[in-house]
Amino acid sequence: MTKVGLLQLDPTVGDLSGNVQRLAGLAQLAEAQGASVGVSTELAVCGYPPRDLLLEHDFVQRSFNAALSVTSSIPLLVGTPVPAEDERSLPTNGVVRCGPEYTTITGEGQARIVAEKQLLPTYDVFDEARYFAAKNRSGLARSFGSLTLGVTVCEDAWQSAGMTPSAYANDPIEHIAEWCRQGVAIHATVNLSASPFHADKFTKRLAVARHAASVLNHPFLLANQVGGNDDLLFDGRSLVAWPDGRAVVAPSWQEGVLLVDLDDPAACSWIKSEASDALQTGQHSLMLLEANDNGQAMVDSIDELTDAVVTGLADYCRKSGITSIVLGLSGGIDSAVAACVAAAAIGPENVTGLAMPSRHSSQHSIDDAEHTAMALGMEYVLHRIDGMHERVEETLGEVLEHGHTVAGENLQARLRAILVMGYANARSSMAITTGNKSEIAQGYCTLYGDMAGGYAPLGDVYKMEVYAMAERFNQRAEAAGRTAPVSSSTLTKPPSAELAPDQFDEDTLPAYDVLDDVLRAHIEGGLNADEMMASGFEESLVMDVLGRLERNEHKRWQMAPAPRVSPRAFGQGWRRPLASRHDWRGAP
Amino acid sequence: MTKVGLLQLDPTVGDLSGNVQRLAGLAQLAEAQGASVGVSTELAVCGYPPRDLLLEHDFVQRSFNAALSVTSSIPLLVGTPVPAEDERSLPTNGVVRCGPEYTTITGEGQARIVAEKQLLPTYDVFDEARYFAAKNRSGLARSFGSLTLGVTVCEDAWQSAGMTPSAYANDPIEHIAEWCRQGVAIHATVNLSASPFHADKFTKRLAVARHAASVLNHPFLLANQVGGNDDLLFDGRSLVAWPDGRAVVAPSWQEGVLLVDLDDPAACSWIKSEASDALQTGQHSLMLLEANDNGQAMVDSIDELTDAVVTGLADYCRKSGITSIVLGLSGGIDSAVAACVAAAAIGPENVTGLAMPSRHSSQHSIDDAEHTAMALGMEYVLHRIDGMHERVEETLGEVLEHGHTVAGENLQARLRAILVMGYANARSSMAITTGNKSEIAQGYCTLYGDMAGGYAPLGDVYKMEVYAMAERFNQRAEAAGRTAPVSSSTLTKPPSAELAPDQFDEDTLPAYDVLDDVLRAHIEGGLNADEMMASGFEESLVMDVLGRLERNEHKRWQMAPAPRVSPRAFGQGWRRPLASRHDWRGAP
Repeated sequence: MTKVGLLQLDPTVGDLSGNVQRLAGLAQLAEAQGASVGVSTELAVCGYPPRDLLLEHDFVQRSFNAALSVTSSIPLLVGTPVPAEDERSLPTNGVVRCGPEYTTITGEGQARIVAEKQLLPTYDVFDEARYFAAKNRSGLARSFGSLTLGVTVCEDAWQSAGMTPSAYANDPIEHIAEWCRQGVAIHATVNLSASPFHADKFTKRLAVARHAASVLNHPFLLANQVGGNDDLLFDGRSLVAWPDGRAVVAPSWQEGVLLVDLDDPAACSWIKSEASDALQTGQHSLMLLEANDNGQAMVDSIDELTDAVVTGLADYCRKSGITSIVLGLSGGIDSAVAACVAAAAIGPENVTGLAMPSRHSSQHSIDDAEHTAMALGMEYVLHRIDGMHERVEETLGEVLEHGHTVAGENLQARLRAILVMGYANARSSMAITTGNKSEIAQGYCTLYGDMAGGYAPLGDVYKMEVYAMAERFNQRAEAAGRTAPVSSSTLTKPPSAELAPDQFDEDTLPAYDVLDDVLRAHIEGGLNADEMMASGFEESLVMDVLGRLERNEHKRWQMAPAPRVSPRAFGQGWRRPLASRHDWRGAP
Repeated sequence: MTKVGLLQLDPTVGDLSGNVQRLAGLAQLAEAQGASVGVSTELAVCGYPPRDLLLEHDFVQRSFNAALSVTSSIPLLVGTPVPAEDERSLPTNGVVRCGPEYTTITGEGQARIVAEKQLLPTYDVFDEARYFAAKNRSGLARSFGSLTLGVTVCEDAWQSAGMTPSAYANDPIEHIAEWCRQGVAIHATVNLSASPFHADKFTKRLAVARHAASVLNHPFLLANQVGGNDDLLFDGRSLVAWPDGRAVVAPSWQEGVLLVDLDDPAACSWIKSEASDALQTGQHSLMLLEANDNGQAMVDSIDELTDAVVTGLADYCRKSGITSIVLGLSGGIDSAVAACVAAAAIGPENVTGLAMPSRHSSQHSIDDAEHTAMALGMEYVLHRIDGMHERVEETLGEVLEHGHTVAGENLQARLRAILVMGYANARSSMAITTGNKSEIAQGYCTLYGDMAGGYAPLGDVYKMEVYAMAERFNQRAEAAGRTAPVSSSTLTKPPSAELAPDQFDEDTLPAYDVLDDVLRAHIEGGLNADEMMASGFEESLVMDVLGRLERNEHKRWQMAPAPRVSPRAFGQGWRRPLASRHDWRGAP
């Protein structure tokens, strides 16, 4: 019985030797457990997304060489960029064959390319038309162990299911199906993927795989990247689907091997990675799904979100060499949950929380901040900012008096940022911001103040989800016999920025449950104002929220990102050195 | 004699009605001066680059309708996005025909599309494959006035000259040349462009036009966008080239019409825009070029750079509704030149400079800052930061004592940012940063400190160029009978951040003339370390500069941009909410 190992890899973008080593380790593990062939994720040797590294010819060539150098005692399909044919062409996103039959052949690089990606996604988080040339022939791995496999790369499988934002001119799955109809004996089709996570993405990926298996009339196997790279997060969940709709899905947030028995879902198994630094968040169980089950009932959305956010920060720190984190602790829900995330990601002993009360801060805020820090077991420091605050107010004097009131409020947030960044710089820690998606989208935050930091763990989490995550962290702590880190006071008090006397978020914003619904309809739902009103939202609410979202009210200029400093920010052409970018729609 | 008006337009992205009005104004001007037909720039009705606005079907439809609604008493070719054929397709980047023969026909939208862009640049600052479908048939405008014109859009002309980073599969210029060989009588080919500015770009664009005219054996006319939009800057310089190599080039940095006599270069003329807010920087003269002249001798590179930087800031402010600017004035060369740029862009009466000395600041710094402000006629305010500085140092105490020294230095820069942002927020001004490209590339700056601001006018100007711009601003002031704004003390003292006693930039960085050469070889030249050493740079210098550039030394985490807050920052998929992005290459 031939078993296929789907190597669910957590590569680091650019770390060619490290990725090759991880890959070889997974292949060895797969073989030890009975796999006779192995399949990696997309661009496994360079990691996904390699972005502008692909513009360096030297990098592409070194990746390709690294892929060919993978040693394995079973045959492997390995994803790698393939060097361009000439100076006026782009590289391709390819798959090479490594392993026992091939390692003795030298100088045969081109002959070992078994597939090149045909559909290059260039929407949302994808930019592949920028880096790759598209090919128009599907891949086939003959005599691969005892198998003949159709070979596709990620997006190649999505056109057939009609699940891309716009249609491509060709359909790689249909190409392979046509070969089958012509009598080529293909045992299964594999797909090397780097398919990022978002809420509900998993059921979509499963639908794509089931559709492909049904069209091909043979098993469809998808090996997906796991872990965080740059601003993308991958959930893993490699899977296999059969033509009758049965499917087996690997765990999320873990590195390892999905060992696939092509004939028997029940004989598939999950082998976790043996690498000492391997990602191992969440539950180690396979999903075995019948045809009518999309597995959604087996996934708790708040557990999922919590694990995703923790995994993202943990992997970012590991891959970037960050070993300690500092953040402001206000006593509010956002900073409490951000502290829980940081502690779960890199260990509470590596996290420092600064309570920085001003004259507008209440005693319960200080108490609640301290409670969270103590319960998590992280370092806790208190610095009052009143003295500094008064000095700055004196200095600005008349300007504040005659100016917009938000200018005075921002001072406190910015003084706190100076302290947080002072700790971060002095200790080579990373500062993290604590803002949530709802308030950031409304501009209810201070640039160079509470927005200062290298990573925003809750930046894509709506306020009501932050509350749900707090409850989940409390439940997890209690289940482990520890004190719940988020106090009931933090959970129940009305949200306040505490930048002015008796200030509450709802003085400025709609109630968060309402606000979140409006934002979700616009941001995730893609509805414009007219469509939102047609779907039942009140006009005044829609105009209020969207107006604030687009204009960020008087804070517009505070919202500008700081200038980027990577050399790539300059490009080779002239870029107007613009630090601020906003979306004007008609006259401002 | 048929004259063609090339409408060198300065559109605002998204301002459909405003752009249509500007366009109609230019067309009227062209007609009044004898043009019998007019040609706009690329995507003139929506402005370039429209970016994610193109993802909104409604926006594309409204742009198309706006283009069809342009009223003109002469026939016009107008650039506009063209709605997708169906829900699973992308729009195209097209050209429609407006004017007397067409305005009476209603419901004929599709029939009026005369061209759709074939080559979609997706490199450097371009992302067109993300938004548009490519077509594969060149455009032809028959009975256009008394002319038949070949019609191309920007990139369409660049493949023929071999001047794109990678090759396209088809060549629109060759398509039109083939029609000519088949006997179609084509009088000229036009090109609707939005071709951004960078140093030396102008001679490349001229070479493209001459190549096309030579291949086509008829005049080639290029109408180019002018002005700033988002992070792109366009220099205008619409032009016409004849098969024998003669050419006429319109002025840069100005809105207006290049009136082309197809038979006689000497009969071409420039008509400046009559719009009250039209961009009118630099000299209003045409270049008449013989075949062997690329015009470079007529362009002073420092004048060019100065005009570009001023135009960029001026147009950004106008289009974004920014009417006042605040910046820190240190007495150093960068802030002096940034103040000159701001004063030239929006008028000195709308600029405020803050001198904010600390205990490390010298008296000459304060004097030099005041000199610049007085000479320019801008508001000047002095706030010492010593008191605040001491309070923050006291607060951080031990953390600073035992930490990295840069943490202490950063405090001053961040306190200054609080004051600058306090002024900006209170008065609804925009803060600008004063850093130059050399120091930003080396991380010789403080995030949330001197990097705080909505726009970095010198962010793409090397340090030695900043000195040259200072001399130019002084010459211009003296020529106008005003005091030179940059004092000789500012021009001649050794650069210093003045964040520590006796601190000079060259203690940390190579001499700026050396540094600039190294950075230019890497950033503009695209050379890697090996190639730079092979070209003659010393290994230690290369490793020092590139090492600092890639790692930004201990400041790495300070370099992160603040979280973006536009709704587009979230996309519709899940983006890991990453505030910091850096380029890891292998293990950090």
